[in-house]
Amino acid sequence: MKIAGPKGTRDFYPEQMALRNWIVQRWTEISRRHGFVEYDGPIFERLDLYRIKSGDEIVSQLFHFEDRGGREFAIRPEMTPTLARMVAAKANALPKPIRWFSAPRLCRAEKPQRGRLREFFQWNIDIVGVESELADAECIFVAVDFFRSLELTPEHVVMRINSRAVVAALLHNIAIPDDKLTGVFAALDKRDKLSAEAFAEVLGEMDLSEKQREALIAMGEAKGPEGLDRIESMLAGDESGQATVTQLRQVFAHLAAFGVAEYCAYDMGVVRGLAYYTGTVFEGFGQGGLQRAVCGGGRYDELVSQLGGPSMGGVGFATSDVVVEDLLAEFELLPELKATADYFVIDADASVFPQVLELVGRLRHAGVDAAFSYQRQGVGKQFKQAASRGARRVAVIEPDFARTQTLNIKDMASGTQASIPLAALIDDPFMELPTTS
Amino acid sequence: MKIAGPKGTRDFYPEQMALRNWIVQRWTEISRRHGFVEYDGPIFERLDLYRIKSGDEIVSQLFHFEDRGGREFAIRPEMTPTLARMVAAKANALPKPIRWFSAPRLCRAEKPQRGRLREFFQWNIDIVGVESELADAECIFVAVDFFRSLELTPEHVVMRINSRAVVAALLHNIAIPDDKLTGVFAALDKRDKLSAEAFAEVLGEMDLSEKQREALIAMGEAKGPEGLDRIESMLAGDESGQATVTQLRQVFAHLAAFGVAEYCAYDMGVVRGLAYYTGTVFEGFGQGGLQRAVCGGGRYDELVSQLGGPSMGGVGFATSDVVVEDLLAEFELLPELKATADYFVIDADASVFPQVLELVGRLRHAGVDAAFSYQRQGVGKQFKQAASRGARRVAVIEPDFARTQTLNIKDMASGTQASIPLAALIDDPFMELPTTS
Repeated sequence: MKIAGPKGTRDFYPEQMALRNWIVQRWTEISRRHGFVEYDGPIFERLDLYRIKSGDEIVSQLFHFEDRGGREFAIRPEMTPTLARMVAAKANALPKPIRWFSAPRLCRAEKPQRGRLREFFQWNIDIVGVESELADAECIFVAVDFFRSLELTPEHVVMRINSRAVVAALLHNIAIPDDKLTGVFAALDKRDKLSAEAFAEVLGEMDLSEKQREALIAMGEAKGPEGLDRIESMLAGDESGQATVTQLRQVFAHLAAFGVAEYCAYDMGVVRGLAYYTGTVFEGFGQGGLQRAVCGGGRYDELVSQLGGPSMGGVGFATSDVVVEDLLAEFELLPELKATADYFVIDADASVFPQVLELVGRLRHAGVDAAFSYQRQGVGKQFKQAASRGARRVAVIEPDFARTQTLNIKDMASGTQASIPLAALIDDPFMELPTTS
Repeated sequence: MKIAGPKGTRDFYPEQMALRNWIVQRWTEISRRHGFVEYDGPIFERLDLYRIKSGDEIVSQLFHFEDRGGREFAIRPEMTPTLARMVAAKANALPKPIRWFSAPRLCRAEKPQRGRLREFFQWNIDIVGVESELADAECIFVAVDFFRSLELTPEHVVMRINSRAVVAALLHNIAIPDDKLTGVFAALDKRDKLSAEAFAEVLGEMDLSEKQREALIAMGEAKGPEGLDRIESMLAGDESGQATVTQLRQVFAHLAAFGVAEYCAYDMGVVRGLAYYTGTVFEGFGQGGLQRAVCGGGRYDELVSQLGGPSMGGVGFATSDVVVEDLLAEFELLPELKATADYFVIDADASVFPQVLELVGRLRHAGVDAAFSYQRQGVGKQFKQAASRGARRVAVIEPDFARTQTLNIKDMASGTQASIPLAALIDDPFMELPTTS
């Protein structure tokens, strides 16, 4: 009986797995060179962990189940609640600042359809317990450094940066009442996907004054250094409001010092949907045919204390393997990943096959990736196998090996061949081959 | 509100994560040097996938759930059904032999209690589509090579090897009827955990003849080369039965050629519980205070065809991160894993802090792991931070840096210090430091 894999999930055959590993390996390397250490939690958590952060409506978006004791669990749909739980549980014992990364597998109960995956891998970078804008800037730097390491330029990805504190100050300044804040945030969040007319229409449907609407339209268009100047002037006379702009300018100054200013732009259109962001917010935005966010993050203040920990702010971002693959495909930067082997060992005659196994055993013991043919067949066919396995070198064992204790070694790339004594090969499997033999 | 992690699962704080990564990294390295390529499937599968292999009773041991469409799923409790499903789906297109490994996260709905985990990581090695005993021997070789790479000797771990085909021939020879085979297999499987008397008692409770009981007791004691000789003589006159012994001897001959005979022993007491094994079966057995299986595997014939694929035999084994950790702890071989950084950049005066960020930015861009202090503080305190971060080198930026473009570099292990021009540092961050400055 044939059983299919679950819709909306992927089978990682070796070829797909090599690409996934390549992406995760890059995430890991970039994390480490920026001084982040890896953590992980369980694949499922108490369902309440997600209810606390996101309310009851989250439940239908999760794969949830009960154990025999009636406890409710869900497969993790994001990593931040686990991070906050782990930090809250050991807040005092953990060395500060907390600079953690992870590459968790996450699942969401999406309706199975093309392009909406129920399972994916997500890179998470977080700095917790640091109030300074340095942490905000460093997270953005990490994201840029990752994209740059993929040979993506500002023509491919731009980091759009804003501050929820600045937005809150502006809305306070034009006297948007508390009960309309959520709606206005949502409208601003959608600004970039709408034409100027459509945005004006959305605002028109809200119960706002003409002056408020005009201010929101002016806000929605603020981009780049002049945009930020304009925002600052809109806050003239509001000292605490202007302080939020100064903080944001500090983030940009640090990014310039880190050498990544060309990737970074102020953009009032970035508000980020998640309710828990309180300060800097940012997203990487894919240019060209992509035209969508390829990573997103920001500063959050309440997550750790919500889970019974001390009041500790944090800042972080995430991106997924699916998005990274789309980005690389869009700009034709997907790597070519080929199978390779260090050595392929061949018997020139079936009588010396035990010596093939013996040499393979000794090479592997020495840490060398060594392969051989399961079938006894001609030397030519074995060489073909060696080539298809991507072997760098081939060692041929001749029938008189017991007497000579010498092997014919061929370098597959250069074609160079040489007779090498067994002892010398074991001593240094990648010795330079003399070209004169 | 404080929410605990699910009982029976682990939080991997950076220290625990480093050990998990170390173990998985070793699995990956050993797999690759033996020519295995990595694959993976989704974390959950259709519940039917497990029902087909193990019947309805498996369901209570799984974390299972439905999606909104009423489809039944379970978090994977083992990898082999996913392997068989993936092979069956593309059997003809996949290059042969299939030599795959994976290190999946698995979950089982154990009752939460000390020492029984609901979530763990398992290393899987499989060769599919090869009938030759070479594949059986190679899998055992991989397991031994892994243990040997951890500096475990035959005093720590022994591979106990048997053949279900040999057992079946013996039982056939003493005319055990089909309806008693399962019970007799189960009794033999338990043999090693029982005294000779208790084993005789278990057999006594079964409806067997005196002669059958005597033969089973003799079988149960067969170990080592003499044991295998005795088994062969018990099969005198049974040609196909003796052929199964010849095959098993071939496995041992290949293991000797691979150079790992000292780790391997014939043991009639190893039958392995899983119903799907049909040929060679083996387990690594921890010596010393451990006295339990630390890996297990064998040859299976029907799995792929059960899932609608062609008839393809396979052989494989698995072990888990929990078992490996126990094994290393038992023999005091757990690695010391310390955090490290390549460079720690210090400002001798807060006025040059922007230059710290600039140098950090340039070093990280060059692939160097570079850290710095978030707080402006004295040089001595910053050096302490560098030491606690495990920095190999420290670069100090003096207040006159803008003019000199030169840094003081200190190697933390040797204590060597030198003045190095910025351009030279960027060019080669790990240059040898002149000892005369």
